[in-house]
Amino acid sequence: MNLDAITTPTLLLDEEKCRRNINRMAEKAKEHELKFKPHFKTHQSAEIGNWFREEGVKAITVSSLKMAEYFAANGWNDITVALPVNIRAINQINDLSSKIKLSLLINDMRSLKFLNKRLACQVNLYLEIDTGDQRSGIDPSNIELISQLTDYIISSEKMLFSGFYSHPGHSYACKGTNEVRSLHQNVLHKVQKLKSLFKLNTNSYSVCIGDTPCCSLAKDFNDIDEISPGNFVFYDLMQTQIESCTLKDIAVALACPVVAKYKDRHEIIIHGGAIHFSKEFLTLDGVKQFGAPVILNNDGWNKGVKNSYLKSLSQEHGIIKCSKDLFETISTGDLIGILPIHSCLTANLMSSFITTSGNEINQW
Amino acid sequence: MNLDAITTPTLLLDEEKCRRNINRMAEKAKEHELKFKPHFKTHQSAEIGNWFREEGVKAITVSSLKMAEYFAANGWNDITVALPVNIRAINQINDLSSKIKLSLLINDMRSLKFLNKRLACQVNLYLEIDTGDQRSGIDPSNIELISQLTDYIISSEKMLFSGFYSHPGHSYACKGTNEVRSLHQNVLHKVQKLKSLFKLNTNSYSVCIGDTPCCSLAKDFNDIDEISPGNFVFYDLMQTQIESCTLKDIAVALACPVVAKYKDRHEIIIHGGAIHFSKEFLTLDGVKQFGAPVILNNDGWNKGVKNSYLKSLSQEHGIIKCSKDLFETISTGDLIGILPIHSCLTANLMSSFITTSGNEINQW
Repeated sequence: MNLDAITTPTLLLDEEKCRRNINRMAEKAKEHELKFKPHFKTHQSAEIGNWFREEGVKAITVSSLKMAEYFAANGWNDITVALPVNIRAINQINDLSSKIKLSLLINDMRSLKFLNKRLACQVNLYLEIDTGDQRSGIDPSNIELISQLTDYIISSEKMLFSGFYSHPGHSYACKGTNEVRSLHQNVLHKVQKLKSLFKLNTNSYSVCIGDTPCCSLAKDFNDIDEISPGNFVFYDLMQTQIESCTLKDIAVALACPVVAKYKDRHEIIIHGGAIHFSKEFLTLDGVKQFGAPVILNNDGWNKGVKNSYLKSLSQEHGIIKCSKDLFETISTGDLIGILPIHSCLTANLMSSFITTSGNEINQW
Repeated sequence: MNLDAITTPTLLLDEEKCRRNINRMAEKAKEHELKFKPHFKTHQSAEIGNWFREEGVKAITVSSLKMAEYFAANGWNDITVALPVNIRAINQINDLSSKIKLSLLINDMRSLKFLNKRLACQVNLYLEIDTGDQRSGIDPSNIELISQLTDYIISSEKMLFSGFYSHPGHSYACKGTNEVRSLHQNVLHKVQKLKSLFKLNTNSYSVCIGDTPCCSLAKDFNDIDEISPGNFVFYDLMQTQIESCTLKDIAVALACPVVAKYKDRHEIIIHGGAIHFSKEFLTLDGVKQFGAPVILNNDGWNKGVKNSYLKSLSQEHGIIKCSKDLFETISTGDLIGILPIHSCLTANLMSSFITTSGNEINQW
């Protein structure tokens, strides 16, 4: 890529790292005989979607009907919307389900009855289960509700029961591989218990889980049939802290122009703020960090800069606390790279990527 | 507006409140004989820009050259880019300055010399001064650097010296009117000292400050010539905490579909997450809050819901911790409004507004 041509905050994508991340997860899914239904909310790009196709992926997961529409228009015809079903959008649901195999997440009887009344085409429904995240999902010990909902689905001609879906997002709070694996075993235990308590009068159903830490680090996928992680496509600093990945797996960096330097505080100001990175941060050794600087070259970026970090963000400004070395080697007018804390939010804020080989990739 | 037509997270704008906020600040500027150069980063919309025109505004402030291009294309011909000048974007600077009166912020000699060599048309330059925020700006006691820079500007035919610009963003950390006013007096004191130390061999120059708390609450604007606040156009929960405004001044609310309810924890899930609100939060009584629920009606929203708050956000999910009353009255499929913590970031994430009278207003 041509760094000289970059004049404004620009999201760089290392295609090789990204394809390696995709390949590794696809291989892991094959090894464990899991259906791989990657979450596309992280990249939101038809072109990167094609890199998954090359790995044999046929079904995907998204986080909104709008995103489902975009990927359906780009040839994906088996899409799960991983948010409790939004019945206000029944027209969009009917439109989509007339074109593709659409799967939705159910959490309550009210929504289910509404769908039964208003669905124009058949949809596939997962019951969403809370395996510990306490965001969305039914408590798996609430067999009464689960039975009512599945019975209702199975008795309806407009709905197919797909199984159980869970996002163990509490894995994002784990510190290290052992914690993630232990949490994952707990998730498996809940799934097993649910399966044993819950005998269905139907041929088969699937259990799908979808968080990057567990999908990256776990070794036991018994009782799991499908995985739908998303973040792993790029990874980020949050995932290195969790140990889902190492720094060399992070496939995106934001290139930012250096616009000011302040010697007394060894800080530089970049054009690159909350509207580029998001305000996600990590607290490391008691210090808030919004990103980690890397030195850019025309092929990508280096391993990082010691004792330097993105200290704060306002709308379009970022402040980098610099080591003495970094401060002395960098000038206003230079470009610096920043590895993001949470690549999903950073990618969402940027509308396109420039690959390290110089191609532009657009999002929807 | 027609709430029934809303199926997805939608940013609602109360035009009356917004116009009242604009009018109040415009009147205050007149009263204190200040040139009013509002920051348009908060709304990023040509149509809302016109509401400022109706108040006699002729010059504006923005946070990027791209935003300057958008507003220049919409008839604004006196624009200040309030970020330390990004010399990598010299072509954009030359293009803009050939069309409008463009003002830029200078922090260093290197950028100044670069501009002097490469500017194709005359630009106006403010020296950026740090009045305590410690983000960007030269220490006002660094008279040597300030003299060097102004001398250089004045001796160049390509540059006009506009004066001093400062964003006292540290006012965002203030708790209450007295703290803001005291901080503002400190800013004024620094400006006075700078002016007395710094005698310029030029007819006149201006001092511009641009933060919403000081511009909303201060009563003394001696030694200030121009103001460029931005956030006040919508205000938000952060500003109510600072006391820059009251809840009834907040002009935007995000309408979100309710997609799930969990009785055991009195929590509801909305479609509305970090990609709609941003991850900005307030910590109130030790509790992180990402927004405050309001009950929507076709004319706007109510004063708020006691003992209820937006507890956490992931990419597209939000969790509202509900009072017993709120929990019992709300159902999946309903719509709920959320007042944002930081309206600038929320508005940036949403690409348009629906006004309470039902009009759609697009951003760039």
